[in-house]
Amino acid sequence: MPNRRFEPGREFSESLDAADELRAFRTRFAIPDPQLIYLDGNSLGRPTRDVANRLRLAAEDEWARDLIRGWNAGWFRAPSRLGESIARLVGAGPGQVLVTDSTSVNLFKLTLAALALRPERTVIVSDALNFPSDLYVLQGCLELLGRRHHLALAPSPNGITVEDDDLLSHVDHRTALVCLSHVAFKSGFLYDAASVTRRAHEAGALALWDLSHSVGVVPIELDRWEVDFAVGCTYKYLNGGPGAPAFLYVRRELQEKAFSPIWGWFGQRNPFAFELEYTPGPGVERFLAGTPPILSLLALETALEVAIEAGIEPIRRKSIALTDYLIDLVDTVLEPVGFTLASPRETKRRGSHITLRHPEGYRISRALATEMGVLGDFREPDNLRLGLSPLYTTFGELWDAVDRIRRCVDEARYLRYPAERLPVT
Amino acid sequence: MPNRRFEPGREFSESLDAADELRAFRTRFAIPDPQLIYLDGNSLGRPTRDVANRLRLAAEDEWARDLIRGWNAGWFRAPSRLGESIARLVGAGPGQVLVTDSTSVNLFKLTLAALALRPERTVIVSDALNFPSDLYVLQGCLELLGRRHHLALAPSPNGITVEDDDLLSHVDHRTALVCLSHVAFKSGFLYDAASVTRRAHEAGALALWDLSHSVGVVPIELDRWEVDFAVGCTYKYLNGGPGAPAFLYVRRELQEKAFSPIWGWFGQRNPFAFELEYTPGPGVERFLAGTPPILSLLALETALEVAIEAGIEPIRRKSIALTDYLIDLVDTVLEPVGFTLASPRETKRRGSHITLRHPEGYRISRALATEMGVLGDFREPDNLRLGLSPLYTTFGELWDAVDRIRRCVDEARYLRYPAERLPVT
Repeated sequence: MPNRRFEPGREFSESLDAADELRAFRTRFAIPDPQLIYLDGNSLGRPTRDVANRLRLAAEDEWARDLIRGWNAGWFRAPSRLGESIARLVGAGPGQVLVTDSTSVNLFKLTLAALALRPERTVIVSDALNFPSDLYVLQGCLELLGRRHHLALAPSPNGITVEDDDLLSHVDHRTALVCLSHVAFKSGFLYDAASVTRRAHEAGALALWDLSHSVGVVPIELDRWEVDFAVGCTYKYLNGGPGAPAFLYVRRELQEKAFSPIWGWFGQRNPFAFELEYTPGPGVERFLAGTPPILSLLALETALEVAIEAGIEPIRRKSIALTDYLIDLVDTVLEPVGFTLASPRETKRRGSHITLRHPEGYRISRALATEMGVLGDFREPDNLRLGLSPLYTTFGELWDAVDRIRRCVDEARYLRYPAERLPVT
Repeated sequence: MPNRRFEPGREFSESLDAADELRAFRTRFAIPDPQLIYLDGNSLGRPTRDVANRLRLAAEDEWARDLIRGWNAGWFRAPSRLGESIARLVGAGPGQVLVTDSTSVNLFKLTLAALALRPERTVIVSDALNFPSDLYVLQGCLELLGRRHHLALAPSPNGITVEDDDLLSHVDHRTALVCLSHVAFKSGFLYDAASVTRRAHEAGALALWDLSHSVGVVPIELDRWEVDFAVGCTYKYLNGGPGAPAFLYVRRELQEKAFSPIWGWFGQRNPFAFELEYTPGPGVERFLAGTPPILSLLALETALEVAIEAGIEPIRRKSIALTDYLIDLVDTVLEPVGFTLASPRETKRRGSHITLRHPEGYRISRALATEMGVLGDFREPDNLRLGLSPLYTTFGELWDAVDRIRRCVDEARYLRYPAERLPVT
């Protein structure tokens, strides 16, 4: 087919790798087993090569030697210092981003802050594609506030996308907050966050975006889009490490009006004056709570340097190329063995992971991980989720992964695995 | 004086070290500069020698090699696994302690859980010695609940202790919760937590203890004392590292009735089923929120092994011997140069730090840290706080520290330092 952009075969994938402007970045990561194709960087990114050494320095040079003085030597400012690094990846001017707590705790804080800014309104709008964890936090907020509000979920009839009309039909004068994941965790659907935020504002509502599945892989312009609040996790495409601390963003204009419900001493105006009455700190720092986990923060800081050095525009270009290529391979190689694509085909509506459905998805995922050296993600009921991390995923890996997936089905290898779900232990 | 228990001089301090049953434990800690006398282990404990290597293994062997599989290989259970280690130090049977979030966030969760269990009551009782950070969290909870409750603080006229009668006169049929620090952060005053808990229960109130300044250095019997809730930090006497994750305790009988206000996915019954409606997990695990910072947790785990190996009874014996010895040195060596003791003299009312007051306390603390190799803590307005960490503090260090403090005043070295407070940067 002369009008095809991609050709079959490993050789062609290698030509794509040879032309990859980011190919040098793979060497920045610790990859002890290059035969293992890791397509789950959207759940937990790989470690950079520098991180083990950074942790050694943190323990031996900073903690052991500086002891309590380490707080003044740099730890105390770590939440805002790392926040400024994240700010460069999410289009935020200074003084609006902090790294602290977990995504859930940050979402809790910002949701309650937002609802307090719209006391006369009673609805939070989200969608059925949102990460359940986010929906739980929202449900908990509503319970805590005495069920005076309710949560309206825009539907996703196809399980892949949400239509603008379906979402916006829920947004009206009762809407306090529109709270969505920028990229949906299962399908990879990418919202037009600028447009949704504008429409939320037109209705007088505030907009809170969870950037967990987009930060570090999709260009984000929080300031330009006039987003009110955002949260996000740092252990996916930002490679911050398991459970790395999350971030939050509060638009400058809202900072003096918005309050964290958790009045922690790191959010107090002057934590070391030990005053008995809480006075919120200036600006976004009032959204800090307790003492942040410094070792995890320093590991993340090392990883952020790599993403910032690569730059979000080249990362997005490669992400699009990787996802385009994988979708082409799904169409040509995997559809014939029973897979269907469960991610948006439209480039601008797609993050950096691709989901495939197959009736035997669970057993296939077990076989791939156990004996075929392909580590992806399984999501109920039958989704194989393949995350493409532009800083280290290669086109050659995608060719090999698809070839192994095809063989897994062709050779019926998955039949050796039970369909009963393994417990998470 | 033949009836004195302690003799003056360095030689005597060395004899105390020679008889110290825990003296071998000092070698388990990384101490790059043995000339520096570190008396701030009550703010940030020293790192164990093993921690740098544990972090390297976490990064290189677990994260880099296991990748997402690390969660099943051990990370997922880390909050409860470490919780069971802490449980051994706080007298808790299994299934009641978790390591997660910060002390502030945990206090927030448990305070709201407690108030929901006493809906008809409107008062939280605490005291004026409580860590301001805890008071801030309590104030924030009351604000969030629409100021239906108020916070009653028992006074401490001497700034050192709280009299039982002063505290208990605030506890009555309106009291929902008695929330106190087991050991006061400034004076080191130690409550009789069993007695206060019993009296709270007699009034129908619940009891929540912050164990931050007692865990790892004072015997704690949460189950036997029938404590309802507890929180605590792990970076002081437990040596978990800067901002190491905190712990929480929920008494077994309350677990199915109590709810966390933060409905995070780690507290959901089955987080990986991705159900859209939150159902709290069984037992204490419902008090988990978001994804925990694993690197910081694993560093803490290594440190906990040392404390558990030493055992809380020998630690308490040495803590008492250290504080007795230091108080004796204060009386004999430092009182003549203007210091007064601002900690309880009664052994059973004392934690493991000793506070001295001196009109020039701030400048003295600067001189000690800058040129005299004694690193303690300064707390406004004039308190020198000296933390004695039985696992690595020696009697010889106490003699030397007191000798240096005396010289600092005798030789007027502090006069070289301005009284203006340095900013925390």
